[in-house]
Amino acid sequence: MGCREGREFRYKQVIVAREDLGMSPGKLAAQVAHGSLGAAEAARKKHKEWFDAWIKEGGKKVVVRASGEPELMELQAKAKELKLPCELVKDSGLTELLPGTSTVLAVGPAPSELVDKVTGELLLW
Amino acid sequence: MGCREGREFRYKQVIVAREDLGMSPGKLAAQVAHGSLGAAEAARKKHKEWFDAWIKEGGKKVVVRASGEPELMELQAKAKELKLPCELVKDSGLTELLPGTSTVLAVGPAPSELVDKVTGELLLW
Repeated sequence: MGCREGREFRYKQVIVAREDLGMSPGKLAAQVAHGSLGAAEAARKKHKEWFDAWIKEGGKKVVVRASGEPELMELQAKAKELKLPCELVKDSGLTELLPGTSTVLAVGPAPSELVDKVTGELLLW
Repeated sequence: MGCREGREFRYKQVIVAREDLGMSPGKLAAQVAHGSLGAAEAARKKHKEWFDAWIKEGGKKVVVRASGEPELMELQAKAKELKLPCELVKDSGLTELLPGTSTVLAVGPAPSELVDKVTGELLLW
């Protein structure tokens, strides 16, 4: 059955974050925001209609888990195959992580059913 | 002494999140991303030069703590007084929180010293 939401959202953005890095909540949030902004910009440029519809609906964002870098790379490949706007964030390494560590992958905004083809099996944070 | 950063950033965005709500890391991250995107849009419209310079520098984002709603409101008033782009996020209440609960305040992108006048005393998440 899973969770039931009170509203239907036709568009969404899903941000996948690595759970193997042990990021603090603040670090996680900042990386998710980087990814969210980057993928939103990509959508604005290539799928303005998706971007506008998403914003109009309230800009739904969901944060889910990936086990590590290999899974993040697989998901990125799948998103690219489907030509979905996406953004892979690599940390600049100034604080908690080594420079160049991949941290999150943001997919969408795009039609929810397309995003689900990439991230539909992943668990919520 | 505090933390020392390896690079200087002339522009930044600071996202203040309420620590009294007991948000899960994923909820926190999604709310921070909402605020980040909203305030970035506000900057793009009113201070395009700040927005562009911030993106060029890598889009620095920092997540800090507020004790509760009264502090968030005070910070918002201060940001408005300084005419800084900002965004207060109210949750739609579909999952963890009551509808209309204020969760985060994003301030900037703006010159770092101006943002610090609002958020400079707050602790990192």
